[in-house]
Amino acid sequence: MSSYRAPLKDLRFALNDVLNVAPLFARLGFADATPDLVDAVLEEAGRFTTTVLAPLNRVGDEIGCTLDTATGEVTTPPGFKQAYAQFAEGGWTGLTAPTEFGGQGLPHTVGVPLGEMVNAANLAWGNFPLLSHGAIEALKFHGQPWQQEVFLKPLVEGRWTGTMCLTEPHCGTDLGLLRTRAEPVGEDTYTITGTKIFITAGEHDLVDNIVHLVLAKLPDAPPGPKGISLFVVPKFQVARDGSVGARNALRCGSIEHKMGIKGSVTCVMNFDGAQGYLVGQPHKGLQAMFTMMNTARLGVGLQGIGLSERAYQNALVYARERLQSRSLSGAKFPDKPADPIIVHPDVRRMLLSIKSLTEGARLLALHAGTLIDIAHHADDAAEREQADTLVSFLTPISKACQTEWSIENTYNALQCFGGHGYIHEHGMEQLARDARITTLYEGTTGIQSLDLIGRKTAASGAAGLKLFLGLIEQFASAHQGDATAAEFIAPLREKAAEWSELTKTVLQQAASNPEELGAASTDYLFYSGYVVLAYWWARSVVAAQASGHEAAFKQAKLETARFYFARILPRTLAHAAAIRSGAEPLMAMDADRFDA
Amino acid sequence: MSSYRAPLKDLRFALNDVLNVAPLFARLGFADATPDLVDAVLEEAGRFTTTVLAPLNRVGDEIGCTLDTATGEVTTPPGFKQAYAQFAEGGWTGLTAPTEFGGQGLPHTVGVPLGEMVNAANLAWGNFPLLSHGAIEALKFHGQPWQQEVFLKPLVEGRWTGTMCLTEPHCGTDLGLLRTRAEPVGEDTYTITGTKIFITAGEHDLVDNIVHLVLAKLPDAPPGPKGISLFVVPKFQVARDGSVGARNALRCGSIEHKMGIKGSVTCVMNFDGAQGYLVGQPHKGLQAMFTMMNTARLGVGLQGIGLSERAYQNALVYARERLQSRSLSGAKFPDKPADPIIVHPDVRRMLLSIKSLTEGARLLALHAGTLIDIAHHADDAAEREQADTLVSFLTPISKACQTEWSIENTYNALQCFGGHGYIHEHGMEQLARDARITTLYEGTTGIQSLDLIGRKTAASGAAGLKLFLGLIEQFASAHQGDATAAEFIAPLREKAAEWSELTKTVLQQAASNPEELGAASTDYLFYSGYVVLAYWWARSVVAAQASGHEAAFKQAKLETARFYFARILPRTLAHAAAIRSGAEPLMAMDADRFDA
Repeated sequence: MSSYRAPLKDLRFALNDVLNVAPLFARLGFADATPDLVDAVLEEAGRFTTTVLAPLNRVGDEIGCTLDTATGEVTTPPGFKQAYAQFAEGGWTGLTAPTEFGGQGLPHTVGVPLGEMVNAANLAWGNFPLLSHGAIEALKFHGQPWQQEVFLKPLVEGRWTGTMCLTEPHCGTDLGLLRTRAEPVGEDTYTITGTKIFITAGEHDLVDNIVHLVLAKLPDAPPGPKGISLFVVPKFQVARDGSVGARNALRCGSIEHKMGIKGSVTCVMNFDGAQGYLVGQPHKGLQAMFTMMNTARLGVGLQGIGLSERAYQNALVYARERLQSRSLSGAKFPDKPADPIIVHPDVRRMLLSIKSLTEGARLLALHAGTLIDIAHHADDAAEREQADTLVSFLTPISKACQTEWSIENTYNALQCFGGHGYIHEHGMEQLARDARITTLYEGTTGIQSLDLIGRKTAASGAAGLKLFLGLIEQFASAHQGDATAAEFIAPLREKAAEWSELTKTVLQQAASNPEELGAASTDYLFYSGYVVLAYWWARSVVAAQASGHEAAFKQAKLETARFYFARILPRTLAHAAAIRSGAEPLMAMDADRFDA
Repeated sequence: MSSYRAPLKDLRFALNDVLNVAPLFARLGFADATPDLVDAVLEEAGRFTTTVLAPLNRVGDEIGCTLDTATGEVTTPPGFKQAYAQFAEGGWTGLTAPTEFGGQGLPHTVGVPLGEMVNAANLAWGNFPLLSHGAIEALKFHGQPWQQEVFLKPLVEGRWTGTMCLTEPHCGTDLGLLRTRAEPVGEDTYTITGTKIFITAGEHDLVDNIVHLVLAKLPDAPPGPKGISLFVVPKFQVARDGSVGARNALRCGSIEHKMGIKGSVTCVMNFDGAQGYLVGQPHKGLQAMFTMMNTARLGVGLQGIGLSERAYQNALVYARERLQSRSLSGAKFPDKPADPIIVHPDVRRMLLSIKSLTEGARLLALHAGTLIDIAHHADDAAEREQADTLVSFLTPISKACQTEWSIENTYNALQCFGGHGYIHEHGMEQLARDARITTLYEGTTGIQSLDLIGRKTAASGAAGLKLFLGLIEQFASAHQGDATAAEFIAPLREKAAEWSELTKTVLQQAASNPEELGAASTDYLFYSGYVVLAYWWARSVVAAQASGHEAAFKQAKLETARFYFARILPRTLAHAAAIRSGAEPLMAMDADRFDA
């Protein structure tokens, strides 16, 4: 079985030395979020996730969730319910939720390390509280006061959990096609009828009530995505005074047999005239849904980091212990029958790939967290708007890159184990299977890429990109005289200029042929992700040197950054060439000729 | 469940139009291997694999193999035994084996399409006959005449199957560490004692006897890899007259629970004084083992192609049927509720990636097949030696690239399905899980890369590379005036020159620091693979234009080649940059600092 320890040292380095969050939190009015408190939260989150959640990771995979088809009830794996009760009891479900709804009122940024650690410890388990976050956000921003009163508090306190009911059998990405119908039956009250699929945590035994946020169409809905409304539909009916009533007319019809995340339940949910309430305005459900989805997307990005971190830790232990062959430059441990495989350059290549992508991604995710806090809490409206623009730009990069890298990282970690990695008992193959969902749900990598290059770049005059390029230039100017930083600043500036030029090229081409956006999208997303990480690696080196950390830590950051610039960043060459080749090589082939 | 049809059209194109095998087979003395006969073999292999093996792919995954711990006997999934009986009955086990041992005596090249189709239809099942091939090769080249007489015929006829018993718990790659011991007890007769792990098809119910080829050490063995001998150790004892006797003292102790290929059994084999015979010379077992391994490596490469082809077929069907969103350039099917996803550039990118890598790899594999036939059957010794040098060079490229691409290809195919790809019933996730073993067994990708850059390049004056560069230049010179070929010939020549230059650079660097070989190895292997495929795509275009195929087929080859050169070949830029960055970024970090 794979093991896990909380990477508190690197989390602290990222929060304190690189991002310097303490003055930011103070400025944004988080009086309670003192460095000591944040540190205590990290410490306790590390303890909880490693001692309570991590030991349940394997049983979740092996036993999974089961559906009683007679009752439609789902039983979670042994220990999941008790762990959830402890989690709610500890106040973790509402860590970053407003105090007026029973939350702890801590910055969103502080929830990011928690998310990483929960997902590293037990990704499947983490999906139960994760989905509540989206529901909380949707109700917080779009719910009526009475809905907030009645639904938010139990969700924040973890007494109930939430879901996002979007997908139907014939529509996932294209929600305009959805068929679930809502019929008005009274003030703000509707009956919901239809079938939703792929509903994570749609039914389970962790809590007493489940709050479904459901997309459906009103009778007078215009066709397509502009005719979608959002409803809150609880498993047990809830009156306006908060009293819980009868079982609602909805039921889990079946659960999916999946490649991984077997401890997480994926439900077909049948709504058969279930009573629900409209959230927000009629036909404006998609906007409300995006509120949920952006939260969920960043959350799925953290799943990628968590899996990568756990994969790295286990591969590193194995690479230090497994004795096999001698170093090419002569025996390093002549007293042992062979050298540990960490002496071999190609094993180091795999380990350093994981390490550099994971520690870099951690900064991308935490930075996005700070931007969310600024966007919600800064005094200055312009600062709020800028932060919102930048985090909107970074969200698809964060979600897609962190999850794609988790697939690469779990691949490399398993590969370090050789044939042993393919055997269930070592736990590495579970990490690879669990990782495989992350580039699919909450919008595939292709959808994130279109979001990045379309809505977040082409449709907004590349506003987010310009802000990020500004950060790079600001850092580069500030540190160009710095001897340690110099070797990173020149290539970083080069890449920033190329990123800008590639963007212009694609947008110009797209003006005459809109297919150019789609053709460039995924390569553009990866290109962006690698430059973003180059920025964070350059900053990490500077921050490490300036920090009070010991020499070995500083040296490791420097060496990892050098590896990243030498071995990972050159991937941008291939992505740039693919982008420049344009749409023609993709679009020329008639659909019939794909198997001519 | 995923479906499969035999890609006979592309196989025929590769064999007849690109490689033009008919005159080669005639020249090598394969009088029976007429175009009509080869075609009938392909047709029948297609029928057998699609109608008999493919339907058993899912049951193999779901039920798997089971071990009766009381008896040590293994039961294969339902239908596997009957399918194997039909396979042996049809003469498929000995398709390319010499007629003197009961084989069909067809060229090795003809076995390549069979291997691809078997693996596409049912990879797990295919491992049972696959391992016999290695045993056959080892006995054919190193066995004594009586051993050939007694063991080869039942193996060729498929009445018995073979295994390769190399790995032990503490040694996989580094066989010099092995502990299994052989004690002489009579003329050529030994008792074998030790534990072997990861033994594919080590125990099963398909046949009456299993012939284990076992590496062990004689009492007077020198330490390390030069002290290893090879033994043939049957499950039921076999006398020199071929009579089968008592159960031998060996037994399957347990079977592994794996990520995939669950229909294939992976055994811990305990040898407890089992009777065996020495194969070849004492202490020369490793050379004999390489004979088995090279065969098995090319066979595993075919697993990659088979999985990729099946993944492509299913993703293509789905991409044509699944309606979701409109084309960016306007509705393509305005009468439908949405366009099929094959209109979207990024879906096309994924499909064309799979298609170009798979059809290109098919030529790499078939070319290797022809080289084996030339190496064994050409009249001219120099021609035989050249072919052997070239196929030795291409073997690690073929094994590692075809399997790594199968991981990418099954990834992309699953991704085309969105969330549905993660659900067991669609069969795409099984392909991804099955593919994951292929870069591990028979030597990981790292080991193939070291073999390529070390033994096959540095240690041989880059003889294999020079031969392949010669093929490229010969083709380029012959077709540089050809209007259709011109757009491919210039970049192909450029890449060939760079390949040569990169090789020189690495070898020069390695002269002063041997770690440079390891540091460059995997990137060098991928670089090589992409240039090899560029050659085959350029040749495919020329061959297609000259063929009697219909216009759509010619056009599809041209468009796929253009995609390959525009979108896949640029990956060489990243690999070249990584190679040029040298060993320092990998080797600088002290082993202790990986988690400083």
